[in-house]
Amino acid sequence: MYEPWNALEAPRFTGPRTYARLPHVKDPAGADAAVFGMPWDGGASFRGGARFGPEGVRSMSGMIRTYNAAQRVQVFGNLSTIDYGDAPTVPGYIEDTLERIERFIEPLVTAGVVPVGIGGDHSVTLAELRALARRDGPLGLVQLDSHTDLNDLYNDRPLSHGTMFRRAIEEHVVDPARFIQVGIRGPLYAAADAELPATLGVESLSWLACADLGHDALLERIRNRIGDEPAFLTFDIDFVDAAYCPGTGTPEIAGPTGFEAIRLLRGLAELPFVGYDLVEVAPAYDGAGQVTSLFAANAIFEMLSMLALRKG
Amino acid sequence: MYEPWNALEAPRFTGPRTYARLPHVKDPAGADAAVFGMPWDGGASFRGGARFGPEGVRSMSGMIRTYNAAQRVQVFGNLSTIDYGDAPTVPGYIEDTLERIERFIEPLVTAGVVPVGIGGDHSVTLAELRALARRDGPLGLVQLDSHTDLNDLYNDRPLSHGTMFRRAIEEHVVDPARFIQVGIRGPLYAAADAELPATLGVESLSWLACADLGHDALLERIRNRIGDEPAFLTFDIDFVDAAYCPGTGTPEIAGPTGFEAIRLLRGLAELPFVGYDLVEVAPAYDGAGQVTSLFAANAIFEMLSMLALRKG
Amino acid sequence: MYEPWNALEAPRFTGPRTYARLPHVKDPAGADAAVFGMPWDGGASFRGGARFGPEGVRSMSGMIRTYNAAQRVQVFGNLSTIDYGDAPTVPGYIEDTLERIERFIEPLVTAGVVPVGIGGDHSVTLAELRALARRDGPLGLVQLDSHTDLNDLYNDRPLSHGTMFRRAIEEHVVDPARFIQVGIRGPLYAAADAELPATLGVESLSWLACADLGHDALLERIRNRIGDEPAFLTFDIDFVDAAYCPGTGTPEIAGPTGFEAIRLLRGLAELPFVGYDLVEVAPAYDGAGQVTSLFAANAIFEMLSMLALRKG
Amino acid sequence: MYEPWNALEAPRFTGPRTYARLPHVKDPAGADAAVFGMPWDGGASFRGGARFGPEGVRSMSGMIRTYNAAQRVQVFGNLSTIDYGDAPTVPGYIEDTLERIERFIEPLVTAGVVPVGIGGDHSVTLAELRALARRDGPLGLVQLDSHTDLNDLYNDRPLSHGTMFRRAIEEHVVDPARFIQVGIRGPLYAAADAELPATLGVESLSWLACADLGHDALLERIRNRIGDEPAFLTFDIDFVDAAYCPGTGTPEIAGPTGFEAIRLLRGLAELPFVGYDLVEVAPAYDGAGQVTSLFAANAIFEMLSMLALRKG
Amino acid sequence: MYEPWNALEAPRFTGPRTYARLPHVKDPAGADAAVFGMPWDGGASFRGGARFGPEGVRSMSGMIRTYNAAQRVQVFGNLSTIDYGDAPTVPGYIEDTLERIERFIEPLVTAGVVPVGIGGDHSVTLAELRALARRDGPLGLVQLDSHTDLNDLYNDRPLSHGTMFRRAIEEHVVDPARFIQVGIRGPLYAAADAELPATLGVESLSWLACADLGHDALLERIRNRIGDEPAFLTFDIDFVDAAYCPGTGTPEIAGPTGFEAIRLLRGLAELPFVGYDLVEVAPAYDGAGQVTSLFAANAIFEMLSMLALRKG
Amino acid sequence: MYEPWNALEAPRFTGPRTYARLPHVKDPAGADAAVFGMPWDGGASFRGGARFGPEGVRSMSGMIRTYNAAQRVQVFGNLSTIDYGDAPTVPGYIEDTLERIERFIEPLVTAGVVPVGIGGDHSVTLAELRALARRDGPLGLVQLDSHTDLNDLYNDRPLSHGTMFRRAIEEHVVDPARFIQVGIRGPLYAAADAELPATLGVESLSWLACADLGHDALLERIRNRIGDEPAFLTFDIDFVDAAYCPGTGTPEIAGPTGFEAIRLLRGLAELPFVGYDLVEVAPAYDGAGQVTSLFAANAIFEMLSMLALRKG
Repeated sequence: MYEPWNALEAPRFTGPRTYARLPHVKDPAGADAAVFGMPWDGGASFRGGARFGPEGVRSMSGMIRTYNAAQRVQVFGNLSTIDYGDAPTVPGYIEDTLERIERFIEPLVTAGVVPVGIGGDHSVTLAELRALARRDGPLGLVQLDSHTDLNDLYNDRPLSHGTMFRRAIEEHVVDPARFIQVGIRGPLYAAADAELPATLGVESLSWLACADLGHDALLERIRNRIGDEPAFLTFDIDFVDAAYCPGTGTPEIAGPTGFEAIRLLRGLAELPFVGYDLVEVAPAYDGAGQVTSLFAANAIFEMLSMLALRKG
Repeated sequence: MYEPWNALEAPRFTGPRTYARLPHVKDPAGADAAVFGMPWDGGASFRGGARFGPEGVRSMSGMIRTYNAAQRVQVFGNLSTIDYGDAPTVPGYIEDTLERIERFIEPLVTAGVVPVGIGGDHSVTLAELRALARRDGPLGLVQLDSHTDLNDLYNDRPLSHGTMFRRAIEEHVVDPARFIQVGIRGPLYAAADAELPATLGVESLSWLACADLGHDALLERIRNRIGDEPAFLTFDIDFVDAAYCPGTGTPEIAGPTGFEAIRLLRGLAELPFVGYDLVEVAPAYDGAGQVTSLFAANAIFEMLSMLALRKG
Repeated sequence: MYEPWNALEAPRFTGPRTYARLPHVKDPAGADAAVFGMPWDGGASFRGGARFGPEGVRSMSGMIRTYNAAQRVQVFGNLSTIDYGDAPTVPGYIEDTLERIERFIEPLVTAGVVPVGIGGDHSVTLAELRALARRDGPLGLVQLDSHTDLNDLYNDRPLSHGTMFRRAIEEHVVDPARFIQVGIRGPLYAAADAELPATLGVESLSWLACADLGHDALLERIRNRIGDEPAFLTFDIDFVDAAYCPGTGTPEIAGPTGFEAIRLLRGLAELPFVGYDLVEVAPAYDGAGQVTSLFAANAIFEMLSMLALRKG
Repeated sequence: MYEPWNALEAPRFTGPRTYARLPHVKDPAGADAAVFGMPWDGGASFRGGARFGPEGVRSMSGMIRTYNAAQRVQVFGNLSTIDYGDAPTVPGYIEDTLERIERFIEPLVTAGVVPVGIGGDHSVTLAELRALARRDGPLGLVQLDSHTDLNDLYNDRPLSHGTMFRRAIEEHVVDPARFIQVGIRGPLYAAADAELPATLGVESLSWLACADLGHDALLERIRNRIGDEPAFLTFDIDFVDAAYCPGTGTPEIAGPTGFEAIRLLRGLAELPFVGYDLVEVAPAYDGAGQVTSLFAANAIFEMLSMLALRKG
Repeated sequence: MYEPWNALEAPRFTGPRTYARLPHVKDPAGADAAVFGMPWDGGASFRGGARFGPEGVRSMSGMIRTYNAAQRVQVFGNLSTIDYGDAPTVPGYIEDTLERIERFIEPLVTAGVVPVGIGGDHSVTLAELRALARRDGPLGLVQLDSHTDLNDLYNDRPLSHGTMFRRAIEEHVVDPARFIQVGIRGPLYAAADAELPATLGVESLSWLACADLGHDALLERIRNRIGDEPAFLTFDIDFVDAAYCPGTGTPEIAGPTGFEAIRLLRGLAELPFVGYDLVEVAPAYDGAGQVTSLFAANAIFEMLSMLALRKG
Repeated sequence: MYEPWNALEAPRFTGPRTYARLPHVKDPAGADAAVFGMPWDGGASFRGGARFGPEGVRSMSGMIRTYNAAQRVQVFGNLSTIDYGDAPTVPGYIEDTLERIERFIEPLVTAGVVPVGIGGDHSVTLAELRALARRDGPLGLVQLDSHTDLNDLYNDRPLSHGTMFRRAIEEHVVDPARFIQVGIRGPLYAAADAELPATLGVESLSWLACADLGHDALLERIRNRIGDEPAFLTFDIDFVDAAYCPGTGTPEIAGPTGFEAIRLLRGLAELPFVGYDLVEVAPAYDGAGQVTSLFAANAIFEMLSMLALRKG
């Protein structure tokens, strides 16, 4: 059973930083879940810096303890969890980087350990989906995000943090019929962009629409879209209002509060996710309080709580 | 047709910063609207720094694209828009500065180009009102703000960012009967200050009162007050809660969230505004994430969207 | 009558910083209330820095004026208030520090001047409770906080900012039957922690529970718990969502907005408080906008407003 | 005898911030020297923020103790020193502000208390020179600075932080024959600017020239220029290399190190200064380490040390 | 004659930011020199952020005026200079990006306008060298830097900011016999790295060696190495000690002071440079004072001064 | 042989942060040297934050590679080195903390592994000296620092970061006859403080005296004082000028440059040190560039280089 070092014996600011003071282990055997980093920001269209996302999240994850009172579940001590380290990446080479991330995850997929990734810009999710789809076939996808990331090309090139879900559909690693986007907002490149999800068969909800729907109806929409087959949950930190999570590359205003975002996340606990990630934390833009990294550390704890609930 | 450089051809972080990558043009001919800066902070009563407001807003306006999905309107490509540069200002000399700003705006007023100003501390709005009132007579005024700015004197002197709307009424450039303030809060200098708007014939709503009214009733109150005659919309960034927009000189807590503020702004789209401004952004207090400048860049995009909607 | 220097005669950024530009007076005679600092952070379990809390709050308290429009009460000019300076503290020696703070407050208690303390990490509240309980017996306690602070030992030692209310109960300076905690959230050390308040006879409400209760019912619960006997109000700044108050040692996400927190505080105005404090402001983590210090300065103004309302 | 509170009895971070924990006293009687602030930044040509200079310097002056080991002199306990508070200023009105500062200083000049001012942007020095020259006639001036501040007009207006020494010569409050500038560097507005000091009869040394001269010869040049009559020492913090003192409005690179600057300052101890100031500290640009404010606090301590040495 | 807007008529903080307030012109005709940006950071091995280097340098270049007093040369008004905008780049695709930069520069090379580039990470220099070598053959190279950038592969890939000068030699765009590196320091990957320059025929001087040589002998070494044929000057901002220029991706301590670095740069004025660049400014790491951007803006002014001196 | 992960295979920003990407190993067997943290700041007299010193230094130590070119020594791959993690500490309890640190180090002392500690405030050095003196008897001590740390009591209490070397002499863990302090400067509490080192038999050199002595004579003085018996090297980061290392609790200006400090450190390579530490890094005050942590990471690499040189 892998679990964190006891925070009542030594203060939470001691020791090399791993996620939640978990042991850094490179062998998946004996783990139920593996938290790992994908330090890459070459796909970012505005501000970079997400290569330091894993470091930032690990730093503030010292605040995480073991029991989730809101979900009434003992996470650590119940769910054997490791910090699996970081995927190798290659600055300047996006295809190469995505391949290396995919290979880094494969042993987890093979061993049946649930991958919980920390980005990195959002392009890394394509690597995770590729690794999981090889085992599970085209996946359902819940995308909490302010951007659709369904563009075709940026600067005439196919890969970036704004195009990877178009690629994922083309590659059949995601099933558009089981793909739902929540929280979309912000100016678009062109009017046609507003039709893009529908054209590709994806359900896409603006945050304005979500606010009108209300919490319960929104959860119902998501559950209906995903169903019972394997799915992936991707949480782009810019889903949350920029005031709550300023430390990101393409922040958007007028989104959910932190309270609303976490409540929504908790509502997804029963869904059949086979993998999770939290992306786009860029600590250089987070300010002295590091609240974005703190939020991300908590969101990952909620993902692990979902797994602990399902383990029972 | 003036419009921004295509963000899909070169990343949004390239090029000298103008608002939304618009061309910097000094001749109003051919423009429907002109965004410009008023880099001045000599009227600030607590923290300065708003002289760098135009630079900060232009920097984060790289995030702005062309289509407003919430308002379903194509802004750029439809509304010919220029970045008209910055008004000259004179540090230390407030009367002189307001005169220079007024003269800087006059060619826009004459040409029928809608001015969309970026402050600068709030005293600059007096210059804009003077320039527009010469053409349109006393204006209606919607003031989104946490302070009334109706004081008589600061330090025995008539001009500052806390007194200019008293001057505007005295000079008959604003009609108090068509003047409404929304979002007022924070400690006052004295009990008498609470009566000041009423004494001057101005309608003034605290944010607490607005929250009780609710979105629709609040919009109704504003629309009723303004009517169909020419009006001006001034958005002091400290209207928004300090957590959302910390980069300002006299921030106030317990105000609207960014979501509430933008929703309110969108609700004002049909009003007969002949000019707009967004003031009091002070980047030195904004923190690494620059969320105040980002908010301001979006608020200006909403103002341009109103114009695009009216252009049809 | 002690009151602040007139902010209309000299700008609010002038002069050595005391709370709200009040006179710094070391003799309680003639004062109704005394604001003072407890610059100590040795009890912090994650980030320190609260030793500079009093300086940070005093710095931003330049924004505070004299009249509370929301509560319709003239505070300064009515409530004679002093800045009593800072308690002496001893870095590295927590027992010693708490004793010195207690002795520093005693003259206020004796003179019947209401103490309004600025922390400092939360362990300092134990010193205040000890000083007041000697006069008033076991006190009621309203704790606005994200953590219960009821742990037994940290690192095998009895005093810290996570254990002092357990000590306060053991020492009979607080009456658990009149003790209520509001806003609790965040991961816990263990499942047993969730039962801790009930075990000790303390009423403890998570923020999630508070949100479900609603504003009025929550106030009712607090009033019922406290009753009419002397009580203390302690406001840990991490009660507020981390996005609103990032400048603190153990921030927690998914809490109340600033608007909700201030509204709740105002609702407590009639309760029989004999002392107040605001703790855990750590300016080094607050960012350039200093919004946490600003919030704290306002929260203290609300506490003084309560006293002014009761003075009439 | 006014002296600081004992730092061995209460930590140096306690108490409202005055310079070096000195008592804040508004009556000059009994003082040898008075430290005071001039919170004004309306004369700044690039970045503002010097209105918070006095607060920043007072904050870091907690690091100052009582004995100057390098100069072998007991300062506090020997030189009776007060913190005289801040001059009133009027944002936006530079003439008015300079008059108010002058009036604020007059009681010190009358009482024979040596004024030691903290700026504020450099335009404030004109007010100090006017106050002192009324008593002592045209003064000698040692200006440690990277800019000559001898321009005629900025934006067609006579007062700013780049023109006040031209005004001082015109008004005969400074004697150009006893005026020397040290450390000048940075790009100039035009070639003619390089001749400006000579034209006005002022000796002006670039930092490059100073480096070639060497420490001893440079001191000799300054002493020869000033002679034995009353003089003023003005230290613009941008004299020091921008890496050492980044927290200022118009920083210049390639200047003296902190070690060189302090050594030079110490070498001026015997000169017949009747007043001193340290200007242009802008804390918002100083960074988390606040090293500019720290440097300034030390430079002021060196000025007080000069006075203590002369008092003997 | 292209020259900056007059800073005595409108403050230096007004207007959209171009380098030194120069006109933004896309046609090289009529220009002697063209300043432009290369916003790219995909080649960075540690911290990114240099994509915002051009914006940061332009922002602080408001401090630049027209005359270089140290070099006694009128720069603007004499040397017709434009801000040529930014090269297009493609996040995630390094080969593609270098090609686009090369094509962006070609019109300058063809027109005989001297290119003065602002990086971007150091990999962009390869694009500039390729563009110039097509016209001028293999170039001499003066590299002011703390790293040799002569590695073969990073992560098995040929292009990065640590390998491009190896590529430049292999591609015969640089002549190793006329290539000199100045300022090298910091830990190396392996002992063999210390021999790398010699192996490739490049002269490489550690900063320790330079300090021992002294200013004059060092200049002599550089001049001898370069001779009279066309050469390029590349200034990596990490050449300067990290305390002076913290805003960069791979800072190194124990290097030259700003004074030493600028003095060295001035000493190179007569060399036959056909192009210049200043790379690796990463504003997100620069701190509130932005001293790295300020230093870079000055270094570029020195490069333009060299051209003005040669123009006579 | 413990050595870092290969930085050419995965970028230096990947993986959980240990010092220089060394393996985190809790068993000393097989190691020559052990780097570890002492996260404690309860002894700080001004600013805290050094509890995050180990995290900050580990973060920037990604910049450290394996070969020291200045000292011509292969460090990693030659000197088997581990990251031994962090000592447990107890916020608020200084005696308890020092005991726990001492016990944490004991296995290293017993196993003959050289301890290389990262503070923490300087009080932690007492724990290291106690652990080593038990084996080696009273130690020689080279203290690079701006403060003597020889005070008797602070606030009537014996332990703090300003008193521990007085305790070390009293406890006979340091031999004053073999104790030398280098770099002392800054204001003192009283004239008597200047005599303190001599009174206690300690040699103490101000930085002014060191600058006069020159590099070679200074090294000679240190070597003569230490001789051939076991000694300890303690490097307080405030030894370096505050501009170079702003991220510390009690910074002092007018000290050595980074170049001078590193050159001095390298000159001490042959001395018979049995332990090393680097203390007082406080990342919250370091600014975005993190140059203090970078400097510290390099200084520790120089300490390891000394050991590698002696291992041969």
